[in-house]
Amino acid sequence: MKIRKINLEESEIPESWYNIIADMPNKPLPPLHPATLEPIGPDSLAPLFPEALIKQEVTTDKWVSIPDEVRHMYTIWRPTPLYRAYGLEKVLDTPAKIYYKYEGSSPSGSHKPNTAIPQAYYNKQEGIKRITTETGAGQWGSALSFACQHFGIACEVYMVRLSFNDKPYRKIMMNTWGADVYPSPSERTAAGRKILEMDPESPGSLGIAISEAVEMAVSREDTKYALGSVLNHVKLHQTIIGLEAIKQLEKAGSDMPDIVIAPFGGGSNFAGLAFPFLRLNLEQGRNIRCIASEPASCPKLTRGVFRYDFGDTAGMTPLLPMYTLGHDFIPAPIHAGGLRYHGAGVIVSQLLKDRLIEARAHDNIEIFEAGVMFARSEGIIPAPEANHGIATAIQEAKKCREEGVSKTILFNLCGHGNFDMKAYDDYFAGKIKQHELSQYEIETSISKLETPLIPT
Amino acid sequence: MKIRKINLEESEIPESWYNIIADMPNKPLPPLHPATLEPIGPDSLAPLFPEALIKQEVTTDKWVSIPDEVRHMYTIWRPTPLYRAYGLEKVLDTPAKIYYKYEGSSPSGSHKPNTAIPQAYYNKQEGIKRITTETGAGQWGSALSFACQHFGIACEVYMVRLSFNDKPYRKIMMNTWGADVYPSPSERTAAGRKILEMDPESPGSLGIAISEAVEMAVSREDTKYALGSVLNHVKLHQTIIGLEAIKQLEKAGSDMPDIVIAPFGGGSNFAGLAFPFLRLNLEQGRNIRCIASEPASCPKLTRGVFRYDFGDTAGMTPLLPMYTLGHDFIPAPIHAGGLRYHGAGVIVSQLLKDRLIEARAHDNIEIFEAGVMFARSEGIIPAPEANHGIATAIQEAKKCREEGVSKTILFNLCGHGNFDMKAYDDYFAGKIKQHELSQYEIETSISKLETPLIPT
Repeated sequence: MKIRKINLEESEIPESWYNIIADMPNKPLPPLHPATLEPIGPDSLAPLFPEALIKQEVTTDKWVSIPDEVRHMYTIWRPTPLYRAYGLEKVLDTPAKIYYKYEGSSPSGSHKPNTAIPQAYYNKQEGIKRITTETGAGQWGSALSFACQHFGIACEVYMVRLSFNDKPYRKIMMNTWGADVYPSPSERTAAGRKILEMDPESPGSLGIAISEAVEMAVSREDTKYALGSVLNHVKLHQTIIGLEAIKQLEKAGSDMPDIVIAPFGGGSNFAGLAFPFLRLNLEQGRNIRCIASEPASCPKLTRGVFRYDFGDTAGMTPLLPMYTLGHDFIPAPIHAGGLRYHGAGVIVSQLLKDRLIEARAHDNIEIFEAGVMFARSEGIIPAPEANHGIATAIQEAKKCREEGVSKTILFNLCGHGNFDMKAYDDYFAGKIKQHELSQYEIETSISKLETPLIPT
Repeated sequence: MKIRKINLEESEIPESWYNIIADMPNKPLPPLHPATLEPIGPDSLAPLFPEALIKQEVTTDKWVSIPDEVRHMYTIWRPTPLYRAYGLEKVLDTPAKIYYKYEGSSPSGSHKPNTAIPQAYYNKQEGIKRITTETGAGQWGSALSFACQHFGIACEVYMVRLSFNDKPYRKIMMNTWGADVYPSPSERTAAGRKILEMDPESPGSLGIAISEAVEMAVSREDTKYALGSVLNHVKLHQTIIGLEAIKQLEKAGSDMPDIVIAPFGGGSNFAGLAFPFLRLNLEQGRNIRCIASEPASCPKLTRGVFRYDFGDTAGMTPLLPMYTLGHDFIPAPIHAGGLRYHGAGVIVSQLLKDRLIEARAHDNIEIFEAGVMFARSEGIIPAPEANHGIATAIQEAKKCREEGVSKTILFNLCGHGNFDMKAYDDYFAGKIKQHELSQYEIETSISKLETPLIPT
């Protein structure tokens, strides 16, 4: 019988996370203070994050040890299986070997707990009583609620209003783990009230929700803030995905993949799978192509500009050097999925600038076609975010068929779609339309930026 | 680091299902023809099921070989992990060792695909083009949709109307796998129209939905019917759960459990985990207590009567010897969970009659308390059905604490609650009330029965 899932033992969960900064030929540019435009040091992050996470944010150590308690919590769902996609290969009639790493088996159904657990752990270590955060599709808010519950920390989630309305089950999931959830923009914060004054019907955005969560963290002594993507320490934690995948491919006696693919929102999903493979490129001169798959409706990697920008809408964060569509870009409310953040994390941005990775955009209809094909050939119904990676994998597998070459393709199936059934229903009902984001819209958003350019 | 999950390799998936009939001291009484009251043979099942499944329904062979193609499909999610419930043990402060077998990692989120896959497989082998079925909470309908999709068989699901309205995401899940879903009672069948004439607002019941699915199967040449519980072949397929669990306990170096617990609806959930352990009792004289956990609102095992009854509401099935509340018993629409069937499968009924197993009922509030405690201590949010087993396990673990004895308790965590968030929301909002089913209600329902008694 052909082996479908390559598993690892709990004892094989990696003991360290991988920090790609150590291996990058060009290190990311420093964050700047928005007023002085001077590089800022780690101290300025102290109101937001516990010390241990700030250290991880700026460390240049190549390996960061995973605390035992975090590894033990990981065993609730890790190691996650690496699947050989026999069903998808068959329906595509492709000579490609397709693998996917399945991160949907976590309690909250995505890869997000990989960083939620250590973030809650380090906050607990430093005596923090409450964590605020934002969530878009709900994946991150769920993951942090689950993690905070375990460590006995209160959790306060600002959920993009469009998702809050479309995905009541995500909210209840967070409540079940004891979190408080507010639709964003809310009346609870100055940032939220300001948006609501301008547009009482605002569907919200991740940028707005971040502003609210940050405001509620800095205004209370016992409270810190947590971010589910973008930042270096978040990417660091997610590398557990790729590190496991490499062990699993070795265990299966497989070559390393030719192509590694992951969905792209703020970067942690992509970083998690791809960075450990990029390490092989950087260290051993391998040539593994790493492709970030983003939505055509929020195409910061493929159509954005590389310059300094704020991480949030209200401009409360430091200025970060990144590919961005402009910090007040609000993606069209096509479907309340993730991947709708206006910017890309600094590490990924630098890697793309240096052409060490690639990016590709997929439109809305294409990604649901890919998701339904996957559900019907592999069984698992993927989250819409995951469908972006599947769409790229399908394109590459078809190319293999056309060219008659057998490549090995690996993608990150970052979550299941159990909470996204409404989006599938809309797709079946023909309500999901191809959204053409015009060059004018993008230029308008970017042209508003008054933030520093990056010299080329 | 303490091992949390005991895993098996795909190659360790059992090669045969276990048929407890071979070991039963008293075999189940035969089904009767409703008109003649004569025992009926397997032939009378031919309009409903393919030959291979009818053979499995009546076989007395102890082991039934699992086809390779079915075992390969099982690898999509099997072997499922056996968890040591460290978190739950800690919060209960119990000396008991608690294990649970997690069946929620299947694509449809419960143990149901264990039988959906072989049922679709055998239908395919015999050239069947379409399968009809009923579903209550949606678990079974989802599982069969997934299985039929794989084998290229059309799937037609009659979904209890209360659930159809309360759980739109379950319907979309079935659509995603290509199935057609109708709320039951429907206008499509004579059985449905008859119910709607009497009560246009009927919330439906499993019994009614079975009548509709059976009617739509027997009226078309290329169509068969599939049942998700109750019948012998369904229980047979589910024994994969307990067979894996025994291998896992042996692998962990654990003693066999003192107590094995599973939720009870029609019996397949319970049979799946418990029968392989009952085999150890019957073969080796062990004394493993096996407890079936049912809802107090549908208490056929703890308050029903053991006599012949119909499997459906309209009286289209053979008469079966079972614990029943009467075939037109319609449980109160408290929450649209499973476990709401009026009767128990014949094997389980005979085992209970012979006191080889036990049964326990839990009220609605108790099971949600148990589910929330589990979600907060173990991470996974369980399906309401699964909460019944958890409630029994918690009772037994508390007893261990009171008595200062360390027993080993194993229960079946038969599914996750991702599609049941509304029920949790109702619970948090105080909308779930304790439902007292009066003795009068039960007696009224049972007294309507004109079916044969079973001599004691």
